This record gives sequence, structure tokens and C-alpha cells, in this order.
Amino acid sequence: MRRYFFEIAYDGGAFYGWQIQPKQVSVQETIEHALTQLNSRNPVVIVGCGRTDTGVHASSYIFHADLESVTSVEQLQYKLNKMLPATIAVHRIWEVDPELHARFSAVKRTYRYYIHTRKNPFKQAYSTYFPAELNVAKMNEAARSLIGIHDFTTFSKTNTDVKTHMCEVFNAHWEVTEDGYVFAYTANRFLRNMVRATVGTLLEVGLEKITPEDFKTIFESLDRNRCAGSAPAQGLYLSKVEY
Amino acid sequence: MRRYFFEIAYDGGAFYGWQIQPKQVSVQETIEHALTQLNSRNPVVIVGCGRTDTGVHASSYIFHADLESVTSVEQLQYKLNKMLPATIAVHRIWEVDPELHARFSAVKRTYRYYIHTRKNPFKQAYSTYFPAELNVAKMNEAARSLIGIHDFTTFSKTNTDVKTHMCEVFNAHWEVTEDGYVFAYTANRFLRNMVRATVGTLLEVGLEKITPEDFKTIFESLDRNRCAGSAPAQGLYLSKVEY
Repeated sequence: MRRYFFEIAYDGGAFYGWQIQPKQVSVQETIEHALTQLNSRNPVVIVGCGRTDTGVHASSYIFHADLESVTSVEQLQYKLNKMLPATIAVHRIWEVDPELHARFSAVKRTYRYYIHTRKNPFKQAYSTYFPAELNVAKMNEAARSLIGIHDFTTFSKTNTDVKTHMCEVFNAHWEVTEDGYVFAYTANRFLRNMVRATVGTLLEVGLEKITPEDFKTIFESLDRNRCAGSAPAQGLYLSKVEY
Repeated sequence: MRRYFFEIAYDGGAFYGWQIQPKQVSVQETIEHALTQLNSRNPVVIVGCGRTDTGVHASSYIFHADLESVTSVEQLQYKLNKMLPATIAVHRIWEVDPELHARFSAVKRTYRYYIHTRKNPFKQAYSTYFPAELNVAKMNEAARSLIGIHDFTTFSKTNTDVKTHMCEVFNAHWEVTEDGYVFAYTANRFLRNMVRATVGTLLEVGLEKITPEDFKTIFESLDRNRCAGSAPAQGLYLSKVEY
């Protein structure tokens, strides 16, 4: 058996998240089903770089699978793309050291959150419509307090079974785009709901409802009830995983 | 009563075309319903610049409505956008001379057809996935034979009740984009299915299955059976109407 990494993109709106769920269509199940078909119906199990919630997109997601030696990864990619729905694209397949693990070997993950400020029927499923002018300088001032190693309890879901809420954030920065804003957020790991809760609270700063200092206080309070609501899923993309 | 022009965009995938249909959701019906609500429930009838088929998008569509004097067109635009679904956006409303007619006064219409060549889950509903390299020079050589005043019987639906198939084409040109190709097609009028039938046949040229000379012969034959299949609706946008 050899280990292969797969880089894919998917439209989160078409799935109930990455992970296999009973009675729901997940990205993982859809891909395992296709790979099993292509593997003479011998069950293939895939291991993803992490979970994405229902509705969250991925422009670059990595998973691994252990397969009998693949003669041509290009052929496998071609066949897999043919078999998978239009909502999942396989961009690259390559063999890796069997020690490399899609989830545990990942050292950095980057999410991007897209906002458009003018109603746009062609973006409604792929970006969040937020018709407001945002104070980007203040959002970036607030976002700087995220950088470094911190306890992210404030921006995590209550019912998670993780042992620690410590995360190391390498980058957290807003930029102005052609039709709105984008937030790039890089960390060693992300807790459940962390990006959307962070964005939701940063938007309060952008609207000048709270100050960057208020944001820091809320972040350091480790009180989930002080975090603003989560930003909607359709603006969020897992966009890079580094090993 | 005063006449107002409305510039809108819509996701054709969400509707059974522009025109009101029994038992189907059309763009026209959706907007008339919203405008009637905003007009103290006095029925508002709107007149579009033309029909678009099921699944065809519009990035710039014009319609007119006759209304009692509107105090603020910005307020009307805001309320209408709030009331309409995310799949329709109102970009502009302005008062015009009551002689101006959204359909009959239009002198040029431009459609654009988008193709992407790499599988992309975020474009599948807004562009046509066509994983092939196309000979753009040959497609443009063929497209040049469309320019001018010609009979477009070859590229029209059989069951249309129009009196003439003569159209004047001002522009018909392919360009390479970041991830594929786009065809811009400007004419005084378009017959039903004309853009998609033209694109379908030009793609045969791009694939070098037929030559630009073959294309010209097919076009001049006025034989609908010689036209290649229609290109799918999701790549097509009405993108400009000129008065």
C-alpha cells in the first residue's frame, strides 16, 4: 500500500460538512464511494485534514488515502473527476511518505472569509452579502490581538470535546476587494466555529459598535456569551493547508 | 403616471425564464409581485427588454414600469432589494421619457457566453465546464461571418412565431479568460435559442471538427438541422441592452 495526498475543492452548500454523518450527504462519504468504485469495489477509507461544517466551502482541502500502487495519478484524477458530482473537483493527486498524515502532519491551516457589499445574485451562495461600510483599519487593529498563542474559548462552540482551547495564530488580516472585503486567518489549528465567531465579532468592530479594545477584552474574557453571533457559512472557505 | 427604467441582474438557474408562465416561477412574476406589494397592492405590470429562457442569467437586464411619481428611486431600490429574493438584484432605477419602451426602443443587445476548462465547484452554476483546448483564432474567423445583416434561420428554434429571421450582428468575438473563454455577441435582436445554437456550432470549429468555411456554409444553408446542439444555459448571460 502506498499513501496518496489529494487536493480538492468543494461547494459546501451541497453537503452536510466534510465528515460522514448518518442519513446526510457528506463530502467524505461521496469521495469514499467514488474511490471504492474505482478500486474494484474494495473499500477505500480517506482521512481528511479536518472537519468543515455544513455549508462551509473549501478551495483547497487535503485528504489522504492508502491505495495499491497507482499507475497514473493523472488517470485517477481524471476518472475521479468524471465520477464525482460537479460540486467536488480534484485538483491534484501525489504520492507522499507513508508517515505523512493529512490531519496530524498539517502545521498551518488558512481560512478565508468573503463579504460582498452590493447585492449580487451570482455570489449569494459563495460569499456573504453584508451591505455596510466597514472600518478595515479598526478591524485589523482588533485582529492583531489574535496573533500568537492564546486561549480561544471565547470563539469556540460550547460542546466540543477538545482537551485544550490553545491555538497559535500566525495571521489574521482584512483586505478590501473589488466588491467587498476578505479576511485571511492562519493558525496551527482551529476550534469548531472559531472562524465564524471571530468574524462575527470583528464585524461589530468594523461597524464601530465595539472598539478594538472591547474586542481584546471580550477575547481575553474566555466567556463564550460575550462573542457576537457567528458569521454565515457561505462566505467561509478553507483555502490552504501546509505540511 | 411616470415611466421608470429598472436595471437588474438575476440568477437564471432559480427561474423558469423571464416571462410569466402558468405554474412556474418567472423573474417577471416575482418582480411584479414585489412591486405590487410596494405600490399599496395596486397591480404593477412590467415590460421587459426581451425573454430569456429557463436557466439563462442576466448581469444587466432592463424593464420598465409606469408608476405614480416615485419620491425617491433610491428608497424604492432599497425596499425592492429587501423584498426580492437573493437571486434578483436591482442595480438602478431612473425616470425616462414615457415614449421610451424597454423592449421596442432597445437598439442593441449583448450576450456573453462563459466557458471554464478546469472543473470548478464554485462556477458550475455560472459558467459552462468544457474541458478542452479551443482554437480561438478559428472560432473568431468563423464568427466573422455572422457580422452584418443575415438570415439566422440556421440558429433559431423551429417553432417561433417571428415574421423574419433577419438580424443585424454588430459584434461576435471570442476571448481567452483567466480560466477559459468568453464569447461576446451583440445584435439588434436575437431569435429564440440563437446564442446557444451559435455557440454550440462555434465550439465545433474550436474543436476543429469543422472548419470556419464549413461554419459559413452551415450558417448560409438556412437549415436548422445542420446546426450543432445548443450550448447549455448556465454559461449564458444577457449582459447589456442599449437604447
